[in-house]
Amino acid sequence: MEQHKTTDLSKYNNSWYNPGGAIKRLVWYFINVLFFINPLNPSSAIKKILLKLFGAKIGKGVTIKPGVNIKYPWKLSIDDHSWIGENVWIDNLDQVTIGKNCCLSQGALLLCGNHNYKKETFDLMTGTITLEDGVWVGAKSMLTPGTVCKTHSVISVQSVASGELEAFSIYRGNPCMKIKSRIIQ
Amino acid sequence: MEQHKTTDLSKYNNSWYNPGGAIKRLVWYFINVLFFINPLNPSSAIKKILLKLFGAKIGKGVTIKPGVNIKYPWKLSIDDHSWIGENVWIDNLDQVTIGKNCCLSQGALLLCGNHNYKKETFDLMTGTITLEDGVWVGAKSMLTPGTVCKTHSVISVQSVASGELEAFSIYRGNPCMKIKSRIIQ
Amino acid sequence: MEQHKTTDLSKYNNSWYNPGGAIKRLVWYFINVLFFINPLNPSSAIKKILLKLFGAKIGKGVTIKPGVNIKYPWKLSIDDHSWIGENVWIDNLDQVTIGKNCCLSQGALLLCGNHNYKKETFDLMTGTITLEDGVWVGAKSMLTPGTVCKTHSVISVQSVASGELEAFSIYRGNPCMKIKSRIIQ
Repeated sequence: MEQHKTTDLSKYNNSWYNPGGAIKRLVWYFINVLFFINPLNPSSAIKKILLKLFGAKIGKGVTIKPGVNIKYPWKLSIDDHSWIGENVWIDNLDQVTIGKNCCLSQGALLLCGNHNYKKETFDLMTGTITLEDGVWVGAKSMLTPGTVCKTHSVISVQSVASGELEAFSIYRGNPCMKIKSRIIQ
Repeated sequence: MEQHKTTDLSKYNNSWYNPGGAIKRLVWYFINVLFFINPLNPSSAIKKILLKLFGAKIGKGVTIKPGVNIKYPWKLSIDDHSWIGENVWIDNLDQVTIGKNCCLSQGALLLCGNHNYKKETFDLMTGTITLEDGVWVGAKSMLTPGTVCKTHSVISVQSVASGELEAFSIYRGNPCMKIKSRIIQ
Repeated sequence: MEQHKTTDLSKYNNSWYNPGGAIKRLVWYFINVLFFINPLNPSSAIKKILLKLFGAKIGKGVTIKPGVNIKYPWKLSIDDHSWIGENVWIDNLDQVTIGKNCCLSQGALLLCGNHNYKKETFDLMTGTITLEDGVWVGAKSMLTPGTVCKTHSVISVQSVASGELEAFSIYRGNPCMKIKSRIIQ
């Protein structure tokens, strides 16, 4: 029988990864639970103040719905008039940059973490996610580490994006494929 | 280079959309958070009383599991002996009508809202969702605005439905396709 | 027109299914809500003590992230150095066995319940789920009843697995298909 090397997660070591001070992360953890994940706070205004206090860049006219889950605000930038929908999950182990006039619909997931499945030690890998202006991420869709959504690209509901999505193009599926162009009249 | 029109969400205007009085919506918002989304209340009975108080039509023998999220009960009708599973999300910006003996499994999403991605103003569009009798919506599946599930159709897990699903037929995928007939012995 | 038999959920009867004493299940229900689903408790240690108290087998070096949802700990076994990620849902109506060095990423769902859609009575059916050592279940993926993930198999993000997944193989899609081999260097 063929011999395979195997993984050993007891050797997993992410000590090189330093996403911010331990106290800042701890305080943010509970703020995120109490004011973001917790839908008892429906106010966008309070959330934007808290995000800015923790280093996020937040533009004018940004809307943040209830139930949102944000890992590290200091790795987040949201430009003017963009919307973060209900139960959106920004798992930004790495920088997430959202342009103007973007819409992240309900339950979308921006995933910046990955693991090297070819290594015994299952090493952590992170990747940035960039949404240029006018991008729409459909409900329950997922963007994987390294995704770049060029201007006005659209990811349909419950689809999975990676790599670079062409501008003014509509994608669907897992992995998502371009299905048509987006023409704005 | 080709010139494209772009979106401007500062011009978004959904003032034509009137889903119910502001106070009613606000009160329901917190009831939904405290008694439906909040799994500390596992009782189906209390939830059915609250839904009826807010205008939902609820038949006999209906079961509503913990963690359910309902947008507007006055736009909801559930007929006899239908089940709303754990963490089901009925995002009914428009009317949702569920027949008798239907099952919505864990984490299913009924999505009634959409946007016109061809417009600079990204206009809100809503669509009703109708489940005839005996329909089964699989775990983590999604029905999009305008979906009509004809009697005893089945949507497999983590699939996406739109348009009209044939009676006594089983669908799977994103977008979901008919994979076989449903024969009840 | 063709005549079809229909379902009648008022005749649904799962009295044969006995997943544990009523009081034990009730107490666990609230512990699960307060200490597992509730992200105010980020500690892995407390969760592992509670799981063991309720009959789970938990190995050394197991990590359990916030937001996890576990149905019945007495039907759960997790071996050494395996990780249960944020918002993972182990809906173990039947036995779930997780080997060593496994990773269940964010939002994964292990689903042990099903219904017989060919029966008027929509009978409950359950199936065990087994993960051998070194398995990785990607973010928002789902394993259906009866799934066996052979050693070091990988299910990509937002995919759906059933049946048996080959060892050292990578799967993607709904239903997931093998896309390549996993070679660990």
